[in-house]
Amino acid sequence: MTTSPTTPKSPYPSVNALTAPLVERLVADAATLRLAVTTQDGARMIDAGASVRGSIEAGRRIAEICLGGLGTVTIAPSGPVAGWPYSVVVHASDPVIACLGSQYAGWSLADETGDSGFFALGSGPGRAVAVVEDLYAELGYRDTATQTALVLEAAGGPPASVIAKVAEATGLRPEQLTFIYAPTQSLAGSTQVVARVLEVALHKAHTVGFDLHKIVDGLGSAPLSPQHPDFIQAMGRTNDAIIYGGRVHLYVEADEADAKQLAEQLPSTTSADHGAPFAEIFGRVNGDFYKIDGALFSPAEVIVTSVTTGKSFRGGRLMPELVDASFS
Amino acid sequence: MTTSPTTPKSPYPSVNALTAPLVERLVADAATLRLAVTTQDGARMIDAGASVRGSIEAGRRIAEICLGGLGTVTIAPSGPVAGWPYSVVVHASDPVIACLGSQYAGWSLADETGDSGFFALGSGPGRAVAVVEDLYAELGYRDTATQTALVLEAAGGPPASVIAKVAEATGLRPEQLTFIYAPTQSLAGSTQVVARVLEVALHKAHTVGFDLHKIVDGLGSAPLSPQHPDFIQAMGRTNDAIIYGGRVHLYVEADEADAKQLAEQLPSTTSADHGAPFAEIFGRVNGDFYKIDGALFSPAEVIVTSVTTGKSFRGGRLMPELVDASFS
Amino acid sequence: MTTSPTTPKSPYPSVNALTAPLVERLVADAATLRLAVTTQDGARMIDAGASVRGSIEAGRRIAEICLGGLGTVTIAPSGPVAGWPYSVVVHASDPVIACLGSQYAGWSLADETGDSGFFALGSGPGRAVAVVEDLYAELGYRDTATQTALVLEAAGGPPASVIAKVAEATGLRPEQLTFIYAPTQSLAGSTQVVARVLEVALHKAHTVGFDLHKIVDGLGSAPLSPQHPDFIQAMGRTNDAIIYGGRVHLYVEADEADAKQLAEQLPSTTSADHGAPFAEIFGRVNGDFYKIDGALFSPAEVIVTSVTTGKSFRGGRLMPELVDASFS
Repeated sequence: MTTSPTTPKSPYPSVNALTAPLVERLVADAATLRLAVTTQDGARMIDAGASVRGSIEAGRRIAEICLGGLGTVTIAPSGPVAGWPYSVVVHASDPVIACLGSQYAGWSLADETGDSGFFALGSGPGRAVAVVEDLYAELGYRDTATQTALVLEAAGGPPASVIAKVAEATGLRPEQLTFIYAPTQSLAGSTQVVARVLEVALHKAHTVGFDLHKIVDGLGSAPLSPQHPDFIQAMGRTNDAIIYGGRVHLYVEADEADAKQLAEQLPSTTSADHGAPFAEIFGRVNGDFYKIDGALFSPAEVIVTSVTTGKSFRGGRLMPELVDASFS
Repeated sequence: MTTSPTTPKSPYPSVNALTAPLVERLVADAATLRLAVTTQDGARMIDAGASVRGSIEAGRRIAEICLGGLGTVTIAPSGPVAGWPYSVVVHASDPVIACLGSQYAGWSLADETGDSGFFALGSGPGRAVAVVEDLYAELGYRDTATQTALVLEAAGGPPASVIAKVAEATGLRPEQLTFIYAPTQSLAGSTQVVARVLEVALHKAHTVGFDLHKIVDGLGSAPLSPQHPDFIQAMGRTNDAIIYGGRVHLYVEADEADAKQLAEQLPSTTSADHGAPFAEIFGRVNGDFYKIDGALFSPAEVIVTSVTTGKSFRGGRLMPELVDASFS
Repeated sequence: MTTSPTTPKSPYPSVNALTAPLVERLVADAATLRLAVTTQDGARMIDAGASVRGSIEAGRRIAEICLGGLGTVTIAPSGPVAGWPYSVVVHASDPVIACLGSQYAGWSLADETGDSGFFALGSGPGRAVAVVEDLYAELGYRDTATQTALVLEAAGGPPASVIAKVAEATGLRPEQLTFIYAPTQSLAGSTQVVARVLEVALHKAHTVGFDLHKIVDGLGSAPLSPQHPDFIQAMGRTNDAIIYGGRVHLYVEADEADAKQLAEQLPSTTSADHGAPFAEIFGRVNGDFYKIDGALFSPAEVIVTSVTTGKSFRGGRLMPELVDASFS
């Protein structure tokens, strides 16, 4: 018997190689999806909802770009809130790399030298090239690319200083960068935020100290929130969709004690702020996002299956009536 | 800062450019989908259910061709009628162009010179090239193409006189035309009709005088109706699926008064005929389709979200028991 | 009027031609899906869950390969068991060829000359090339290929003697063969087994003597079962997902008496073993799979629509509480 390996040594795929064709297809379909593609200070800008209408489909595709090409985002005609029939469904076979290595909005991009006041959190495959976040050391992941993309939940494109900052951190020229942006209030923006239902579970798993390498698959879904023109209300709805309407199923290679503890620690019910609409909580802290209890940013309900023992554990609970009130 | 636009000026995509590859793929997969592809009087004919079995999947793909390549049609394992678990789901980011500019069966194609008695309503991207309907002036949309397709809910292909009429109206030769046809009684025919759940909402919005340019996104779903060999019963089921089992969510750039009024005007409940099975209503008018109250052709339940104010409005109600009786 | 056929004469597509690109894509995405691709005794081996983690997405894709490229497998966020929100959905427009001509695990592959003790049931398009099963004469189907694939629900790849056996039966060299394997306990293995919900209905239809050529379309769904490291418990869960949580809708060209009889004969309720968890039944027969009543391997609930008369018939019933107990 002869056995010879023909797969590459690297255990991880390249989120940039996987997303490059998705970004190009977004550009090719700009008219269909109602996007504006421009060049600014050398970098390519895709406006998906600031000065254009954009679309739910654009948001769905942007969410798949956020996931580094490692997951799928679909719209389903069912969900836990009776009056809001459509849901966003996320599936990532490698949720740690997909959600934390790419989708998590973890790169703080402020205009430090200019006077634009621009601030946004960068999400997407460009983060894995820049690796400016401590998180990457823990993930043991970094990527290389000759072109990369960042997604910004923002009402406008980044100024020259931020483009330069990203170029420097990634070792790329502006011409090799694509920035995709849409405000929370837009169709695309709200869709891509609700599609973070699985990512917030991964991030909270990291926060509570669960060994990320033990997470082997994940599914999530949350009701598609209706748009709101007010930023705080829009933030409220997209977060309520996840916090009170999101359901996540994680598969972990962990013993029962660890899986059980994770199921108890993951859901939004662990937060003291749980039970109030997000917009109200946001008001209490006078809009200072960082004063909100981080434990709140997680799905309403979780199932954690230990593939090591076959036992599943549950935590949290859906609050459909709160979601309905938030959306209405 | 330098900003240069790189997207084309035209606000609208070409439904013909988008559907051409979908039509070719339908032909390539003819054996798999159980379709017959022939040439008649120079034009290409795709029989999807008249002399062949066809399939639900063929109907799903034909529905995407009807939508001008601007929407997706999927089959989901859930829906509002407990005993009929599978639904057709439609999503179109530009529902006005997708549903009215392409999918609406608005082109009357009768055999006026021959003696075949052939009559069918043309649907699909060919309508946007011919632009013989007044509707196109209101939409402000027209398309050009070097090849185009029309979908017919019909038990046979069109005769030579109809092919010539379409060739003349589109300025194309018969060799540049594809006709796709399936009777209402067939697997493909019934599927593509139920996939009109979003389109009927758009058409009714137009009828009640709502400014179509304010509609920015749309989702719809309805139970997949089981086939019936009798034309009237088949018509009854596909219409009941929409009228009593259809749910639509529209997103509009409109103020609350307009959005509220639209939600009240859209659903099938506004029709005096509402409450009876469609086949019975069809019998009352002795099969004269045009004597049926047009207000009946609309979804059972609608949600209209004003993206301008963030408020959502509802109208209509599902009648699952009527759908169940109709399907059984 | 001139009419000329342009479709090929053959009524059946080639499951091998349809799956070849799906197999190559599986190999290309091996890193993403966590698969190991090796060469053994000349044949290509894709390990999807034995010595690697694999993924639910790999299982979904393997299921589509099993279906001969004639069907789709999706993950939906809904299903009949409240606590287990995700389901596997299968749709095949030609369910007889897709499920019996390709997906059915009907080719007994034992190591007859070596001492490995290897035994697995071969599934997938390679069966249609080998046609060693009597079933193919009844189907009136066989396929040719210059490369083919077999899927094995197994904890390891086949030994040299089995590779040689497959090569001989298909008339191909080992270099033209791909074996895809995953144990029932793995993410991919359990997913592809639950995706047999439609196939078991087809197989039982065959067993009860229903004329397979009358089956013209089919849909099925079942809850995605959580992994279990123990083989018997894993078998229990995947089978319980189908037997107590599976729903199938078949469309048949048959009169009402035949359709009604099929609806009564198809579901798992016809088995004397119905009502007990599969793992318990498996224990009763001391793990001898062939001693289990074959009538048990079928969906919980079926709808059979006679497209000849338009009438639908039902059989069986869901047992969500049993599924929940099995999965927990």
